Amino acid sequence: MAQAGKESLTRTAMCGRLSESDIGREVVLSGWVQRRRDLGGVIFLDLRDRSGIVQVVSSPEFGEAAFAVADLVRNEYVISVRGDVVARDPDTVNPNLETGTIEVRAREVELLNRSKPTPFPIEDGIDVDESVRLRFRYLDLRRPEMQRTFLLRHRAMQLVRRFLDRHGFMEIETPMLTRRTPEGARDYLVPSRVHPGQFYALPQSPQLFKQLLMVSGFERYFQIVRCFRDEDLRADRQPEFTQIDIEMSFMPLAEFQELMERMMAELFQELLGVTVPLPFRRIPYDEAMLRYGSDKPDLRFGLEIRDVTETVKTCGFRVFQSAVNSGGAVRGLNAKGCGGFSRKEIDDLGALAGQLGAKGLAWMVITDEGVKSPIAKFFTDEELAAIRRELGAEAGDLLIFVADRPEICAEVLGQLRLHLGRRLGLIDDGSFAFAWITDFPLFSYDEEEKRWVAEHHPFTMPRWEDVDLMERDPGRVRAQAYDMVLNGYEIGGGSLRIYRREIQEAMFRTLGFSMEEAREKFGFLLEAFEYGAPPHGGMAFGFDRVVMLMAGKSSIRECIAFPKTASASCLLTGAPSEISEEQWRELHIRPDGVTARQ
Amino acid sequence: MAQAGKESLTRTAMCGRLSESDIGREVVLSGWVQRRRDLGGVIFLDLRDRSGIVQVVSSPEFGEAAFAVADLVRNEYVISVRGDVVARDPDTVNPNLETGTIEVRAREVELLNRSKPTPFPIEDGIDVDESVRLRFRYLDLRRPEMQRTFLLRHRAMQLVRRFLDRHGFMEIETPMLTRRTPEGARDYLVPSRVHPGQFYALPQSPQLFKQLLMVSGFERYFQIVRCFRDEDLRADRQPEFTQIDIEMSFMPLAEFQELMERMMAELFQELLGVTVPLPFRRIPYDEAMLRYGSDKPDLRFGLEIRDVTETVKTCGFRVFQSAVNSGGAVRGLNAKGCGGFSRKEIDDLGALAGQLGAKGLAWMVITDEGVKSPIAKFFTDEELAAIRRELGAEAGDLLIFVADRPEICAEVLGQLRLHLGRRLGLIDDGSFAFAWITDFPLFSYDEEEKRWVAEHHPFTMPRWEDVDLMERDPGRVRAQAYDMVLNGYEIGGGSLRIYRREIQEAMFRTLGFSMEEAREKFGFLLEAFEYGAPPHGGMAFGFDRVVMLMAGKSSIRECIAFPKTASASCLLTGAPSEISEEQWRELHIRPDGVTARQ
Repeated sequence: MAQAGKESLTRTAMCGRLSESDIGREVVLSGWVQRRRDLGGVIFLDLRDRSGIVQVVSSPEFGEAAFAVADLVRNEYVISVRGDVVARDPDTVNPNLETGTIEVRAREVELLNRSKPTPFPIEDGIDVDESVRLRFRYLDLRRPEMQRTFLLRHRAMQLVRRFLDRHGFMEIETPMLTRRTPEGARDYLVPSRVHPGQFYALPQSPQLFKQLLMVSGFERYFQIVRCFRDEDLRADRQPEFTQIDIEMSFMPLAEFQELMERMMAELFQELLGVTVPLPFRRIPYDEAMLRYGSDKPDLRFGLEIRDVTETVKTCGFRVFQSAVNSGGAVRGLNAKGCGGFSRKEIDDLGALAGQLGAKGLAWMVITDEGVKSPIAKFFTDEELAAIRRELGAEAGDLLIFVADRPEICAEVLGQLRLHLGRRLGLIDDGSFAFAWITDFPLFSYDEEEKRWVAEHHPFTMPRWEDVDLMERDPGRVRAQAYDMVLNGYEIGGGSLRIYRREIQEAMFRTLGFSMEEAREKFGFLLEAFEYGAPPHGGMAFGFDRVVMLMAGKSSIRECIAFPKTASASCLLTGAPSEISEEQWRELHIRPDGVTARQ
Repeated sequence: MAQAGKESLTRTAMCGRLSESDIGREVVLSGWVQRRRDLGGVIFLDLRDRSGIVQVVSSPEFGEAAFAVADLVRNEYVISVRGDVVARDPDTVNPNLETGTIEVRAREVELLNRSKPTPFPIEDGIDVDESVRLRFRYLDLRRPEMQRTFLLRHRAMQLVRRFLDRHGFMEIETPMLTRRTPEGARDYLVPSRVHPGQFYALPQSPQLFKQLLMVSGFERYFQIVRCFRDEDLRADRQPEFTQIDIEMSFMPLAEFQELMERMMAELFQELLGVTVPLPFRRIPYDEAMLRYGSDKPDLRFGLEIRDVTETVKTCGFRVFQSAVNSGGAVRGLNAKGCGGFSRKEIDDLGALAGQLGAKGLAWMVITDEGVKSPIAKFFTDEELAAIRRELGAEAGDLLIFVADRPEICAEVLGQLRLHLGRRLGLIDDGSFAFAWITDFPLFSYDEEEKRWVAEHHPFTMPRWEDVDLMERDPGRVRAQAYDMVLNGYEIGGGSLRIYRREIQEAMFRTLGFSMEEAREKFGFLLEAFEYGAPPHGGMAFGFDRVVMLMAGKSSIRECIAFPKTASASCLLTGAPSEISEEQWRELHIRPDGVTARQ
């Protein structure tokens, strides 16, 4: 029996790159057997490497020893083949294979390694539980769609770096073992062996370091960097994620934003062949919440929300009236052409609105005869006409309304907008709609802690014209902060930073810190700022999410080579895991709930 | 008094890039004031940005308000200047400044930020305690030599990535929160909040993941990646360091090494203008130990060690004889032209040898009259002639000898060789001598644990011709492992990996693990290897060290933006630091030595 041994053949060609121009060449190929068919006396092997697949034909006529080895080979065995590239008979050409017009006749087959049968087939579109894919991630990653995704990710990383390098940004590495973050999400902590009872924190972002690098005069910094957040992993978060981190000094905001737009446009042009129109739309936060019910609107379709509070404030419908009277709003959406929805379909929308927090969903169907609605009777003809006008309603349309606090109106109608957009097929999956969301509020009021907190982080610069409001009316202060959104996802965000002491002090007063507390929390950054901090700002992109959208995936787990589950476990390696007694001792810690060791 | 405010000027030029071709232009510059001189009615400001320095002249004649601001400015203040580029008077040209033939007459000066007096001057070659530099790292990094180092580091990173990308390597990110390493150095550990009592480990290297990526069929992988080791920081180690990590499949070793050589040659050519001769020398480990007394020899100079055991084995000098009789060696070094060393100088060499572990240092001075040495009388004329011949000794040379176990001979003479090389000025600081050290032993015997341990790691492939020796005579098995050395430093190392089950099992048997223990330690990798692992191998470069050597520095701390001290502290941020009661609780841990909480 052929024994796998020291490899003696050296690859001279890649499977997927062979073509008719190679006919007559002798090549050596190496790779995995995708499929083996034995047609009695002739064995066909589909041989796969990183570049693609080619058919290898083995018959005693081409090589007797080769045939004996080919006979032993099974799926996912690793082999090298020396053979001749020949044209296929016209009737055996495989139009589904890029190399389908040729095949390789095996003179020599070398068995490099065996494989057990794989738990799922190595091919696209498999229907396998994600936990099995994660447990055998190394096999999952062999599948062509995964290979394509990680090639795209690789290319995107290189392209971003080249773009930033070309524009004078320097890649500078910041520490991973750093000091815990005040005022942020939950840190991952690393106990120190040398300093008992003390901990490093893994960075949630290199925010403070990148600002220090601006104080250092590097002027243009970037890093594609791992960040960490020990959060409960709802939806599509990962405990560690990759960020394109950028900071620069002495540049006007508009110029910086324009540069970031060009970076994205180049990425999409080069890697997807998609031309992104420039400049991006700029939508102030308030407007995004009003028209799209979201600060990360999906702009691939219209279906905009309209505020009809003014129009209905004196109408006879008590639900609307009382919402308005208690400071709320009434907003509506025109579901174009949905006038034919059944009562059940409309009820389902109402149920969805309820789940999203609405007390109810009012609706009107527009017909040639007029407005058909259980609430039509509460409105005057003038009011109905005004509503139709404001929502651009025509016969055949369905109008839906929410009356509630403005945040609830936005949330519910924003989600219904997305729901209807998908359901009505308004979303072109191949299109990419970028925008900037600007003028975020600088502060939000934390009802639990009964104090103002920083929406972004406490170094975010207010708009200059709002500086005077910081202590008088924090809720009205707009930040010089901006998010980049794409197809309903926030893909990046940033701000100009406070670099001047007076404004920083006003910020801390509003947040309710004394300068002593501030120094305790942010001491080294505040100290650095006393030695000539330049005007600076920057942003960070969620790189996993950018790749996810570019690859047309719906989860970032598809774009991370070795992701973790919702309970932050790695199904492949079994991390996290227990440690030894000695390790506990060395770190000067004990499990909680266990009595002290003697 | 001028109040720092919203910036209104937008930079149009960089200080260091201005030249006589800009004369007549109005420019806006932004940066830091390097120096201010007031010549009564005229103020000179040296303005510095990332590109360099230019002189700004302010006088009421050029701008009255500008002059009032310039009057307030001090060192390291941040300003913008609008002004005209003019030629300097021939007698005020500054030949030490790249922009020394021109200056900028200030029409407008905008004060962007103030600075306190800095704790040390922002210039090269300062004589300041390193702890002060680290505490104020953001100011230290402003100094031109630091800016140059990090620009070099940035360029090296980009160049390495481009090289590897061009050769089909894909950058794939591996996890930072992973499973603890069996059989390695000490891990940094991260307690899990979700899984009480369990820990992630920060990677010492992505070794297992990069091998898994080969099983996944990516074929060519790289990453410039942070790695962690919780070791006692002797000499020039850091708890976190950066590695260029590379792995590939289906490639003969020689071809892989040749590729790595070309990468280094390109790096040195492009960034330093240094042409590195190719191919690199290849020196087997045994030969390196014999000739240079080191597995990372400094090859910038000769001064090679010679083994004279055979020659002296029957001589009359008892020290040599007894060393030889007890299985030891006698080796010597010809300190060319040092025959004139005083007795004290020779005694100092002996004292150094003693500190390094030698029992003594024998010496001979070669003169026109013959050999002058206290031990000359123990040798026959033939023996002396043979020694002279073997060491290439001529009149005026000093020969030194160590007789001991071969490891001691190597260590002591290796260090004396370096000492003498430096002292005799044999080392050209501007030269770069690369080599591969090959054929490392696969195993070494751990006297404490009384067992064989893997020299590199337990997946290192033995030479095929030594496979049969693995269980019979482990000490003689040579590994398919290789280090790249440069100027006396190991800058990278790697190996071909075991990809075949039988050899892996033999490895574990030699290490004394049962397959059950092996599965417990390396389970997921062994499992992966059952599904068609390709022949593969790779290497990792210590990137900090490569940059250090390129930048001509003597510590990697000079090449890491925010390094830690020998006690793994960050003097800038104060990491590590204490955490809150709530954080202890959330992580299900308690300080050791503290009684259980109720």
